[in-house]
Amino acid sequence: MEYAMPDVYEPTDRTVPTRSRERAAYDRELVHSILDEAYVCHLGFVRDGAPVVLPTLYARVDDHLYVHGSTGSRPLRMAGETDPGLPVCLTVTHVDGLVLARSAFHHSMNYRSVVVHGTAHQVTTVEEKRAALDALVDHVVPGRADDSRPANAKELAATAVLRLDLTEVSAKIRTGGPNDDPEDATLPYWTGVVPLSTRYGTPIPADDLDESIEVPEYLKPPPAGD
Amino acid sequence: MEYAMPDVYEPTDRTVPTRSRERAAYDRELVHSILDEAYVCHLGFVRDGAPVVLPTLYARVDDHLYVHGSTGSRPLRMAGETDPGLPVCLTVTHVDGLVLARSAFHHSMNYRSVVVHGTAHQVTTVEEKRAALDALVDHVVPGRADDSRPANAKELAATAVLRLDLTEVSAKIRTGGPNDDPEDATLPYWTGVVPLSTRYGTPIPADDLDESIEVPEYLKPPPAGD
Repeated sequence: MEYAMPDVYEPTDRTVPTRSRERAAYDRELVHSILDEAYVCHLGFVRDGAPVVLPTLYARVDDHLYVHGSTGSRPLRMAGETDPGLPVCLTVTHVDGLVLARSAFHHSMNYRSVVVHGTAHQVTTVEEKRAALDALVDHVVPGRADDSRPANAKELAATAVLRLDLTEVSAKIRTGGPNDDPEDATLPYWTGVVPLSTRYGTPIPADDLDESIEVPEYLKPPPAGD
Repeated sequence: MEYAMPDVYEPTDRTVPTRSRERAAYDRELVHSILDEAYVCHLGFVRDGAPVVLPTLYARVDDHLYVHGSTGSRPLRMAGETDPGLPVCLTVTHVDGLVLARSAFHHSMNYRSVVVHGTAHQVTTVEEKRAALDALVDHVVPGRADDSRPANAKELAATAVLRLDLTEVSAKIRTGGPNDDPEDATLPYWTGVVPLSTRYGTPIPADDLDESIEVPEYLKPPPAGD
């Protein structure tokens, strides 16, 4: 019997914003799509009572997020030493556009973000560690884990992986044009949105790459018009 | 007599990484250039003992960073209620490239990040608040503060601004190609870097924009070849 995932994450006190509540969303597919599109998350934890926020790679497998690092790095060491795990907040943000209103006050961004609250635990089995590392490589470029040398025992031992389950999660989204006050409608300023997106440049081969090895299909841009 | 800013930020226990120390940098100009290029920072603070990381706009004026929000938003309210201020960690990250090594283990990102530790204080004078709000608008699009309606008294009263001084600051940078182990040099996998950058789309005018108002010069792309 399969367990059917609910379609939404249950809102909690921490995931309901105090303002702009109409921008908050808890839809699972939407949350996953925002998470899967970014490369870097910002991982927050508390060290000596003070907040620390570090950028790091991550990957999602179903309703688990994984981050990795050297066994000597601070958050990974802290999660290993802490029982029952390290309280974290993991945030992912896409900036989709600059919103230029007529009034300085209503300037804004179009964005999509996901905030995950929870407790990160060190992954302890080799199987889950391997699967997480494959996911991390495939998150950077889908298909790449199968087209590179897998981690050996020494590399596996030097790498710590943290798992954070997606339970207390929310997305926040702003789209569309500026929201100027009606009385500003006739002010003589240009108003609208400047869209932003990520541009992928031409792959740059490593200096020592054998010339007979071609750029793989998974790095080729889609045909023009797509 | 002018006070000459030192060229580097003094490293502290919190700003010296436990690993990849060669990637850490404390040069003031470099830190400023990374901060000035991004739109959104990730602001971390501690609430009820747990970390919270929220994306937000910010701006730099000399060695001060400003973030703003509704007077009702959590971190701004917390900073106002807390004496002497709210301990925060503010992080900015640019992802410049995907680094594809021959080994899964050496996959990486090219990136530039800045991490700022410190205590955020609410701005209390109207002059500094106005200057900070101008800086926030000009950070989104340089020149825009002078080409929009300034905040009125009601808007100023509804907006809280936090200041975070740049004192405990570090940058971290990775550039260049993959760092595969020498014994992997003959593996049959493509290896190199996929550059990433931000693409600015064509400005989209608001639905109710008067047709006689043209796209301002500060939104026009530089001539081809730049």
